[in-house]
Amino acid sequence: MAFEIWRIFRYRQGEIEEIEDEIIQESPLKIFVSHQELATLMCTPKEHKALVVGFLAAEGLISSIDEIISIDFSQDQSIVRVELLQTSRRDEYLARRAITSGSSGNISFNQMQSEEQWPKVNSSLQVDIGKVLSLITSMEKASHLFHRTGGTHSVALASSEELLIQVEDIGRHNAVDKVLGKAMLDGIPFEDKILLVSGRVSSEMVLKTMRRNIPILISRAAPTNLALEIAQKNGLAILGFARGKRVNIYCIGNSQINI
Amino acid sequence: MAFEIWRIFRYRQGEIEEIEDEIIQESPLKIFVSHQELATLMCTPKEHKALVVGFLAAEGLISSIDEIISIDFSQDQSIVRVELLQTSRRDEYLARRAITSGSSGNISFNQMQSEEQWPKVNSSLQVDIGKVLSLITSMEKASHLFHRTGGTHSVALASSEELLIQVEDIGRHNAVDKVLGKAMLDGIPFEDKILLVSGRVSSEMVLKTMRRNIPILISRAAPTNLALEIAQKNGLAILGFARGKRVNIYCIGNSQINI
Repeated sequence: MAFEIWRIFRYRQGEIEEIEDEIIQESPLKIFVSHQELATLMCTPKEHKALVVGFLAAEGLISSIDEIISIDFSQDQSIVRVELLQTSRRDEYLARRAITSGSSGNISFNQMQSEEQWPKVNSSLQVDIGKVLSLITSMEKASHLFHRTGGTHSVALASSEELLIQVEDIGRHNAVDKVLGKAMLDGIPFEDKILLVSGRVSSEMVLKTMRRNIPILISRAAPTNLALEIAQKNGLAILGFARGKRVNIYCIGNSQINI
Repeated sequence: MAFEIWRIFRYRQGEIEEIEDEIIQESPLKIFVSHQELATLMCTPKEHKALVVGFLAAEGLISSIDEIISIDFSQDQSIVRVELLQTSRRDEYLARRAITSGSSGNISFNQMQSEEQWPKVNSSLQVDIGKVLSLITSMEKASHLFHRTGGTHSVALASSEELLIQVEDIGRHNAVDKVLGKAMLDGIPFEDKILLVSGRVSSEMVLKTMRRNIPILISRAAPTNLALEIAQKNGLAILGFARGKRVNIYCIGNSQINI
């Protein structure tokens, strides 16, 4: 269920009462790739396999799931051992990380690649703005862990007509990685899809979207200026503050948005 | 000002208009410590010196600012070079990171230390719950970048009576590091203070608070179960969903909270 019941005290306007409250779970997942310890992710303990696939793809260790020989979890799901066909990209990743990396906040080791290396979006999509707003509303309604705990971010992959995959996680980046990883496992193509996120759109969120060639990114929240600059230069559409019957259109990329 | 003006399109109930919108800035800050590249943080370009000090303290490279010989920024503020009295802890940090680290989501390289190494809170504080709620309300009112852009997290350090330091940043962890770094630079002791955060309380947020011996952590948002477990075992008080005249008291640690 990914949440725990805790007995807590609730204070309200001078009154205090003891209540049972639902608290979102946070668990470590330690990832080994071909016998080398790679990372420990703090995540909501669900969809671990999708998280691992999405994380490896986001960090550039794999391009497709065909490059994975096996994914084995420990019984308590806290450790995962991945075997890759080739270890060269793992070694490049570790070498790059040894030189420079970020840790505080939302940083990917891939993030600070130079502008020339930014992935371009080579796809486009035609969507109706009313439909897009109904997709975000559907995602919100289905954010059951958030409704119970208030402690998750939601991310979904949709066609121009319907939600296909949705996950919730304590981390924005985990949630994105889980959705993209699940789509890779299910063999769903990305080039005619929309990525929907409940949280803010930073440069890294944009890079993750572009790297999978998804043409449209829509958020309930705000983008940063760097996210918009990267998106604008590379053909990604960004819509933000999508709530109810309103939305901001920051850039339309290669896509067409019908009003 | 830490934001940019962009011309965007706003859609509302079938109507579209072109407007000027304020977009929060996101910039890289590359940190070198004694000639070794250490990390690149994506942050709101304000309070860089406080961020560097808070980050180095959070990652265990320094315990006090006396250990810093110099902090020099490049003219465009995108690179900072720090000289430390001793480089042994930097080397330990880099060695630890070479073995394992997380990158996606909110992970510190220090985070997955074993339970025995968790810092204990050796301080306590007596606060009135009404006062605490008024502090959170004051922080919200003073979150000017959030009011303009919707794209920041707020963090503040307060005595039991008043806010002392407040910052906003696109990253929750940057904002915490900036507040703690600024307090270290200003010589403000932590043991009788409260840390207030607008965002969620994860295990790493709790560890950062305990590492500075702050006895009370208050959030507008939800905690995770792991955050509560660590806090409960180590004497930290956690209050959450502090909004208006209501708040949840998850654990009181060594402190006393007067109703």
